[in-house]
Amino acid sequence: MIKAAIVGYGNIGKAVLEALHAADDFEIVGVVRRTVSTAHAPELSGLEVVDDIAKLSVKPDVAILCTPTRKVPEYAKTYLAMGINTVDSFDIHTSIWELKQELDEAAKKSGRVAVISAGWDPGSDSVVRTLLESCAPKGITYTNFGPGMSMGHTVAVKAIEGVKNALSMTIPTGTGIHRRMVYIELVDGYTLEDVAARIKADDYFAHDETHVMAVESVDALKDMGHGVNLTRKGVSGTTQNQLFEFDMKINNPALTGQNLVNVARASMKQAPGAYTMIEIPVIDLLPGDKEALIRKLV
Amino acid sequence: MIKAAIVGYGNIGKAVLEALHAADDFEIVGVVRRTVSTAHAPELSGLEVVDDIAKLSVKPDVAILCTPTRKVPEYAKTYLAMGINTVDSFDIHTSIWELKQELDEAAKKSGRVAVISAGWDPGSDSVVRTLLESCAPKGITYTNFGPGMSMGHTVAVKAIEGVKNALSMTIPTGTGIHRRMVYIELVDGYTLEDVAARIKADDYFAHDETHVMAVESVDALKDMGHGVNLTRKGVSGTTQNQLFEFDMKINNPALTGQNLVNVARASMKQAPGAYTMIEIPVIDLLPGDKEALIRKLV
Repeated sequence: MIKAAIVGYGNIGKAVLEALHAADDFEIVGVVRRTVSTAHAPELSGLEVVDDIAKLSVKPDVAILCTPTRKVPEYAKTYLAMGINTVDSFDIHTSIWELKQELDEAAKKSGRVAVISAGWDPGSDSVVRTLLESCAPKGITYTNFGPGMSMGHTVAVKAIEGVKNALSMTIPTGTGIHRRMVYIELVDGYTLEDVAARIKADDYFAHDETHVMAVESVDALKDMGHGVNLTRKGVSGTTQNQLFEFDMKINNPALTGQNLVNVARASMKQAPGAYTMIEIPVIDLLPGDKEALIRKLV
Repeated sequence: MIKAAIVGYGNIGKAVLEALHAADDFEIVGVVRRTVSTAHAPELSGLEVVDDIAKLSVKPDVAILCTPTRKVPEYAKTYLAMGINTVDSFDIHTSIWELKQELDEAAKKSGRVAVISAGWDPGSDSVVRTLLESCAPKGITYTNFGPGMSMGHTVAVKAIEGVKNALSMTIPTGTGIHRRMVYIELVDGYTLEDVAARIKADDYFAHDETHVMAVESVDALKDMGHGVNLTRKGVSGTTQNQLFEFDMKINNPALTGQNLVNVARASMKQAPGAYTMIEIPVIDLLPGDKEALIRKLV
């Protein structure tokens, strides 16, 4: 049994807990969160809930980081130094290589493993992108996201003056281009026209087609569904027009949580160091006997 | 530069040659085939063509096996013992594990690497199947093939009395069920009714919906296009109805040839032993610098 701790308990932490319960090869040694009360999370009763991983009575093999993405480097380095594997869904695409370098050093120093950026994008989509790049080395890949809620854009809208609550939906219009549909509740005294202009001028939205609408209740619009349509058209050898398409419609935290549990498992099978998902054999994501998996899946 | 030899020169061998020419990190050290004449293959002029790999003036790092699938075990064992990596697209699904065991021993004995069953199914599809199984561990995957020519079924039809020439097309009807569309040229004196009955009674066809049609020219119907539609609907954690779909429309030998070249490259980066594609990190399929690949693809 792999001993896992969940660090952070928002939507992702909750999904990780569900995926750990559904897996037969994990033991949950506890949850690390700022508040140790379980009053609002009855599913945590019976589990050890602490505000510091060192307080857990059983030391975990792996810490599954479900903290805000910017907190990942700090937590991961601390836990690796304590001799605990870490996995995360760090999603700042432009800093993934730097995080890998940083954690690779920390992981090797303590003989442990970190798997980074292992949600669905970056994460399982990255595996598909890499495989398709190999199937047709010349060509173009388009990753089309949505329809689904963008966390980053939603936070950016909420920070704008005159906005009480907001939801920014990502709508794919093909070839990797996206429309932003922004739903807001206005603060009294502000007009939609003024606030919409401010949103459209924000750097998060200035480069995309953006529509802003005022609604009575943003909460009434929220669902956790998301999607990806990833296409590649390219050349295998010298043969043009090879067509590939990957499509998914998923519950966002559920897939992130499942992928994190899968890489937590895979982390137990890698040599010390830090890895992205494209550096890990896909068979290592699954539990069970190698022979049975190869007979079933190859 | 990776030194590669092509063994066997049919449709796949030709596609491998094209993919090797298109790759910057390979040197082609020669082609091994029964007949060393290049009269009917002008693209081989300038290459060393021999009937025994030992006769090549430069020893290859890796032999890319493009022989009939049943010849793969014999060639692979011979070449591994000579200290040459091997890759193949062995496609008898029920014997893949046994081949892996056999070649694993041979490979470890000589400190070399074999990558087996690395066409597109088994092969790149296997990577997608495994990844999706991990994304939604409970659920059902359907692999739908075609429309495209089935080599095995075509050979089976050709062996039937009264058939001069044949083409068996695989048509997907969903949920992994396939229709067989069989086009035949009749031998004089045979009736379509009698021959069709014999085909439908053959074990290759007895379990599928099969339609047999007589045509003037089978060759006029042949193209090398093929396709796959692979779907999985399942559960991530405890969340039902996660939907995944992988679709491709490809030239069959071109993708097989490209995948074989990719695993030839990957074979240089693995520890001694035999591997299926699901046991190899996808990043190893691609040439180039790890940092650049991770920045681009993760």
